Parts: sequence; structure tokens; C-alpha cells
Amino acid sequence: MNERLILVTNDDGYDSRGIAAAIEVARRFGRVVVVAPETTQSGMSQAITMYSPLFLRKVRSEEGLDVYAFTGTPVDCVKMAFDYLLRDRRVDLVLSGINHGSNSAVNVLYSGTMGAAIEGSFYGCPSVGLSLTDHSADADFDGAVLYGERILSRVLEGGVQLPLCLNVNVPVGRPEELRGIRLCRQNRGFWREEFFRHEDPRGREYFWLTGDFVNQEPEAEDTDEWALAHGYVSVVPVQTDLTDYAQLRALRSVLG
Amino acid sequence: MNERLILVTNDDGYDSRGIAAAIEVARRFGRVVVVAPETTQSGMSQAITMYSPLFLRKVRSEEGLDVYAFTGTPVDCVKMAFDYLLRDRRVDLVLSGINHGSNSAVNVLYSGTMGAAIEGSFYGCPSVGLSLTDHSADADFDGAVLYGERILSRVLEGGVQLPLCLNVNVPVGRPEELRGIRLCRQNRGFWREEFFRHEDPRGREYFWLTGDFVNQEPEAEDTDEWALAHGYVSVVPVQTDLTDYAQLRALRSVLG
Repeated sequence: MNERLILVTNDDGYDSRGIAAAIEVARRFGRVVVVAPETTQSGMSQAITMYSPLFLRKVRSEEGLDVYAFTGTPVDCVKMAFDYLLRDRRVDLVLSGINHGSNSAVNVLYSGTMGAAIEGSFYGCPSVGLSLTDHSADADFDGAVLYGERILSRVLEGGVQLPLCLNVNVPVGRPEELRGIRLCRQNRGFWREEFFRHEDPRGREYFWLTGDFVNQEPEAEDTDEWALAHGYVSVVPVQTDLTDYAQLRALRSVLG
Repeated sequence: MNERLILVTNDDGYDSRGIAAAIEVARRFGRVVVVAPETTQSGMSQAITMYSPLFLRKVRSEEGLDVYAFTGTPVDCVKMAFDYLLRDRRVDLVLSGINHGSNSAVNVLYSGTMGAAIEGSFYGCPSVGLSLTDHSADADFDGAVLYGERILSRVLEGGVQLPLCLNVNVPVGRPEELRGIRLCRQNRGFWREEFFRHEDPRGREYFWLTGDFVNQEPEAEDTDEWALAHGYVSVVPVQTDLTDYAQLRALRSVLG
């Protein structure tokens, strides 16, 4: 049997604690190639780099593991892996993360972690974005590692249909405190920003984004936000047809 | 009657030819405030700037028009407008564009123009992303201006339901050659990249993204790609629930 090949990426950079945990998960399932950003790319969404050259650097190589740092976005990293480095090889799964911070609800749209996972699914293999709802430097990844392994194992062996892209979020807590996996839909909500304003050393006013998430349906028990608030690991399958079919019908009278 | 207020933004920068055309369209419907990137932000998707301060500059002010340049992404510009500059004012519509280049099919995911339009719809007003399928410097915006006006007029007066976000693409051609508006769904397809490789003046290898779009359903007549290829202005209503409901059911046996 050919050994499996797993591509690991993230948006926090190739040397983050979270990606070390993701590599630990992925290595239990086969050979691992990491192509991840040189620097943090949080909030980079599905962005691609069109107007700058990109540089690739091999950081580490050992039995079963190769690590590359790439100066692009998370999506650039996935493209570099599939369309250049691993061009002639079969990739069995893409694992993006483990992200430092939640990517539930509408965050899926802003997240570089999920941008990379979505991009991975465009290459015809299962793709999993894995995030821990904890931004702190000393976050405990044990729960995310345990559930990451469980989910990868089932995806790799369970006869899933393609395309498959999963947005997995793990709440804070010791593994034994987590209440299990919950399949969910994406929670409806949006961010409202409070721009932090200050003056730089030269007296120029600057703005810094800081916002609050507004949950439009806190009571809905089938959403990822509800699952996370109640101690479950949320799993939202993600697709990329953004067509609003209800509007498509409604608009016939306006624009048709 | 209170005069309408239109927010205009884009991803090509506040001084692009396309945004000048968008301002021309928007001014026919009311007062216009422009908040657009200082520099080109093509391919920036729904990206937000989390780790840098942002600077705002008033570029121009005249009767019925204020133009601001902002150092953030297109989405940052929309947030700056709604959550700071226009905080206490009612915005009637967001117009993003006119983009230099197509944002049909899966490009909606990578597009900064559409990132801004989607963000606009999160603030409860109709939002329109308008793109011309022509990257050339001397592109003819007349068709996009004409159809942009038609669509804005119907959206502002037609009793549409909210949220509403439209991805409008206009093919190359003189206005009289265009065959009219076609409501469409998003075409299925993906990009495959060919990384352009070269050496910089110091001998370091660099990569530059360059790809081809693979249309997975060129014959489907209800898609935006088909409409554009046949001379129609494509209009795809966009929504942001990425949940894959078919997978949600299928995965119950694997992860449930």
C-alpha cells in the first residue's frame, strides 16, 4: 500500500505552535509536506498574491516530513504545493491549522486558515480547516489534536464524497471536558467594528480594527456557535457556490 | 425627500479609471462618499487588516461627493465607512467597482471587489459589485456604466428584499452590442496555476502566480460564464452561508 501524503498549511506562519500540533496530527496518517506562510496571514481570507514575486524556502527535512516557508498568502501556499512542489503526486488530504482563534460562523469568510482549506478542496482531495477558540500564547492544543485525529481518521477511511471541505472548531477545555463532535450549519451573524484611534509618533492619526461579533441567532441549536458555546467540537461542511437561489427567483420581477 | 447616499469602493484603488466610472454611475442617484484603497488590492478577497494600523486621507471634496483613500483592504474600507465615517447616516446602497477584469464564477471568492460588496451587504443595505471583463488600460467602460445605472435604478426603486448582494459582470463591447441582463447562478470551476519562475538580480529564485480558469460546465446556459461568453451582462445574487447542506446529511454516517 502506498503511504498517504498529507499537505499541512495554516495562516499563523510555518513556525507557530498551532502548526506544530497540526503536523503531529497529520504524521499519524502518512508522509507530511508543509507549505505555510513565512509570517502571520490571519484575516487573509481567500486572498492571492497577484502583483509581487513570491519566495520559497525549505526550512526542515526529515524522514516523512518536509517543511517549506512561502512568502505568499495561505491560498498561495496551497497553490504552490499542488501546482508546483507536489505536482505529480497524489495528495490524500489537506489540513489547515491548527488556528489560534475561532473560525466559526461568518469568520469562515475572513479566515486565512479556511481560505487555504477551501483552496485545498478545489484540488479534489478532502480538506480540513482546524481551529481552536483560544488566541492565547499558551493555548492548550490537546483537545484539538485529539479531535483532529478522530476527524482525519474518519475522513480518510470513511468513504466520504468529494468535494469535501470541513470547518472544524474546537472549544477551550481539556480533551475529557469536550462533549464530542457536532455536525452544524454556519451561524448567521456579522461583525461591527470599533476603530481604535490614536496618533503615531509624528502626529498622524491612525486606525486599528477591533470589533464584536453579533450573533443573529444565539438560540439556534444547529449552528456552530451554539455547539462551541455548549462544549462541542463543531464541524461545518463548506461549499463555494455563493449563488443566492432564493434571490435568483425573487429578482426575476425586478431584473428579469 | 432625503437625498440618497451611496458608498462607492473598489479594489483597484481610489484613483483608478474604473472607480471614476462607478462614481459617475452613483452620482445620478444621490450623494456619494468614496472610501477606497490607497493602492491596488486585487485578489484580496474578504481580507481584513488585523496587525497593522491604517491611515485615512481625504482626497477630494465637492458638492455631493467626498473621496477618501484608506490604506486597508477593500473590506477595511467598507468597515471604515459604515463603522466610522458614516456611522450615524443611512446608506442606501454600496457600489464596488467598476473592476478592471472579470469576477464571474469562482473569482467571486478571490475578488477584493466582491469582498467589499459582500461586506456592504452585512450592513443591511443593497450592495452591488460591478466588473468589466477587460483588464486593458484603455478599457471601454460605457457598457458597464449603462448597465450599472440600469441595475442601480431597479435595485433602488424595485422593492428588493434584503440582504441583497449582486455580482454583476459586463462583457467587452459597445453598449449597443450587449444583449441585456441575464440573472445567473455562479459557474462551477477552479483555477490551475502555472508558476512563472525566474531569478532576481541577486540570484534568488522567485515565483509569480499565473493561472488558467477551468470551466467545469461550459455548456450550462444558466451560469454567469455562459452569459458573458454570449454577450449578456451577468447578474449573480450572492449569499454567505457556505454550509454544504448535502454534505451535512451525508456526513451523519461518517461523523455523526
